[in-house]
Amino acid sequence: MKENQLIEVHRALEIILQQTANFGSEEVSLEESLGRVLRQDIRADRDMPPFDRVSMDGIAISSQKFQEGRKEFKIEGVQAAGSPRLSLESEDCCIEAMTGAVLPSYTDAVIPYELVKIEGGVARILSHEVRLMQNVHGQGLDRKKNDLLIESGRIISPAEIGIMATVGAHRIKVGRLPRVAVVSTGDELVPVEGHPLPYQIRMSNVYSLKGLLNPYGIRPDLHHLADDPDELKQKVGVLIDQYDVIIFSGAVSKGKFDYLPGILDDLEVSKLFHRVQQRPGKPFWFGTREQVTVFAFPGNPVSTYVSCMKYFLPWLRQGLGLVPVEEKHAVLDEDFEFKPALTYFLQVRLVNRKGTLYAIPEAGNGSGDLANLTLNDAFLELPADRAHFKKGEVFPYLRFRFII
Amino acid sequence: MKENQLIEVHRALEIILQQTANFGSEEVSLEESLGRVLRQDIRADRDMPPFDRVSMDGIAISSQKFQEGRKEFKIEGVQAAGSPRLSLESEDCCIEAMTGAVLPSYTDAVIPYELVKIEGGVARILSHEVRLMQNVHGQGLDRKKNDLLIESGRIISPAEIGIMATVGAHRIKVGRLPRVAVVSTGDELVPVEGHPLPYQIRMSNVYSLKGLLNPYGIRPDLHHLADDPDELKQKVGVLIDQYDVIIFSGAVSKGKFDYLPGILDDLEVSKLFHRVQQRPGKPFWFGTREQVTVFAFPGNPVSTYVSCMKYFLPWLRQGLGLVPVEEKHAVLDEDFEFKPALTYFLQVRLVNRKGTLYAIPEAGNGSGDLANLTLNDAFLELPADRAHFKKGEVFPYLRFRFII
Repeated sequence: MKENQLIEVHRALEIILQQTANFGSEEVSLEESLGRVLRQDIRADRDMPPFDRVSMDGIAISSQKFQEGRKEFKIEGVQAAGSPRLSLESEDCCIEAMTGAVLPSYTDAVIPYELVKIEGGVARILSHEVRLMQNVHGQGLDRKKNDLLIESGRIISPAEIGIMATVGAHRIKVGRLPRVAVVSTGDELVPVEGHPLPYQIRMSNVYSLKGLLNPYGIRPDLHHLADDPDELKQKVGVLIDQYDVIIFSGAVSKGKFDYLPGILDDLEVSKLFHRVQQRPGKPFWFGTREQVTVFAFPGNPVSTYVSCMKYFLPWLRQGLGLVPVEEKHAVLDEDFEFKPALTYFLQVRLVNRKGTLYAIPEAGNGSGDLANLTLNDAFLELPADRAHFKKGEVFPYLRFRFII
Repeated sequence: MKENQLIEVHRALEIILQQTANFGSEEVSLEESLGRVLRQDIRADRDMPPFDRVSMDGIAISSQKFQEGRKEFKIEGVQAAGSPRLSLESEDCCIEAMTGAVLPSYTDAVIPYELVKIEGGVARILSHEVRLMQNVHGQGLDRKKNDLLIESGRIISPAEIGIMATVGAHRIKVGRLPRVAVVSTGDELVPVEGHPLPYQIRMSNVYSLKGLLNPYGIRPDLHHLADDPDELKQKVGVLIDQYDVIIFSGAVSKGKFDYLPGILDDLEVSKLFHRVQQRPGKPFWFGTREQVTVFAFPGNPVSTYVSCMKYFLPWLRQGLGLVPVEEKHAVLDEDFEFKPALTYFLQVRLVNRKGTLYAIPEAGNGSGDLANLTLNDAFLELPADRAHFKKGEVFPYLRFRFII
């Protein structure tokens, strides 16, 4: 590939995903495991339910007796949830049984209180029908002991938390999180608390990036390096020894002070590509050195944002052992034109109309318009080989805002 | 309403949302504000961009001179990002200008290095066209000073973080989080680390609930209370004094040991309803006492899960000052039948096919089947007044799993 040639978006992603970093796994507590990637199979430690479980409050009887014509059952006792199983002494009698309790021995149906009249210690059944095992959730009906409940490779949601609690998994094997440094460069940047001079701006990319990594449980360290080649080289050298991944924002363009590609080369980080056929985010530089992976995104805030979503997060998910995510699509809601031969990441608002997702373009002033992101939920990925995109056409999207 | 009559789902939600608790607001740091609800407007502290910003590395010239026929421009200097604005001395010359830098005075266009040949300190422009302000992102083009950038009432995503950093908002006013207690009851429950006897099960609901609250930044305290009326009354009384919200899981059914409704009544928590026309989750009890709100869900894991999503989270969002969320819909992908006159929360897997969301039922063994949740992403809400639901019909859903 010639120095100035741009790599295609799908090819860039392919190369990145070939650099599979396996971060290994670690054990965390059940509560800490939320949002992490499960790296073990979770199996039922016993039948689910573990016993014939009463699912309505009422009386437990032998249904045979009801079928034979008996409507009145003397109450022998009460089967509470959490109490050892009682045994019906006489089949002419019944036991009051509570939701969550074990079904008493020699009973096989529960008639709810709504359909029973109790007087003087005798329950009279008001309904005309009693089915075998009615209002009983039978032992093993949901899952059998040793059944696979959750496969390795899933993100742990509150649902998985509940199931792991049920089977007693209080220490959980999850994908270890990589050590991530997020590094801004650029002498124009001042801290958020600072008062920028007219030609300066405040740092923002490192905070956005930190936010994008947050759902995965990653708390990256933030660094800022000045545009000085010697200092940059020395400090980047130190970072490479300390982290699994370094995400840069800035200094990869063609400017006189864009020292990063040269410095990374000096530090023997192998360049796998530089410059991608996309907007925003064209100057993206990607390389590796042994176990260290370097994503060097351009400093433009929207470039960094979309590139993190398109390239870093899929690579991260793969490294965490997560099963690949299928591309999601939305229907373009207005004609849109973009002429350069670049994949365009169009800012869109997603609207769900009767089950179909429509992408409403709110392109703003293009790739540098960070404020415009607040109006939007996602980037619609428009292919490089076309200029005209028609209302009603379907394209993949990258979503950055979720309503829970 | 008669004691045994069930309240409709939409009416239950209406009553809950009328009990608006305003938790007030608090100030947090920029980084802590992720996922919180913004309770102030964020405005531009200066124009965005704050100056005419160079958006490509190249040479800055006076376009007028190019239009007059000049192709070669002697280089006067270099305008770096983060440096004070230079001034072009002679309009026959140019200044090298870097991405992110201020456009030098007396220049009005930037020609990228790709279209320039530099030799002996002179830049020769290779392109045939130069447009006014090309490769310059003009001051105030995106937003003007004092423009509203983010309205109060939005959830803060990484995009908002970046914008707030840009305008120097390092302390952010967000909705204060309520103090939440999540309380399990039921003598059948043992701790997750415990070894349940044959008639016991492990606690799981409190952990699922804690997980469901996590995205909002709420870290509830977890409690377990025994099924003893005196102890329950004493301990619930203490909780009411300590928390803004108490979420119970269990002891609200019609069983002999379901003491909670009576105890809440004794403690002067006013019942607003008990028992909802839905499955799972029918025995749901809801009430308030002054500033305390009590959601008492049935102990069945799936009941608790769906009820938290349907009732607690919308109430929470409202209390945090979040703008209401529109209902989202999906297309039922198979015929489904549910006969009881109850709103049914059907477990479904959501699949995006060419922009349309299809809900594939994986109903499992009904409301008690917690393990089934791992196969699913959402609950599809099927109305109570119908029994037959046809493939292709559209219904609202509650999603509990997100792919980021």
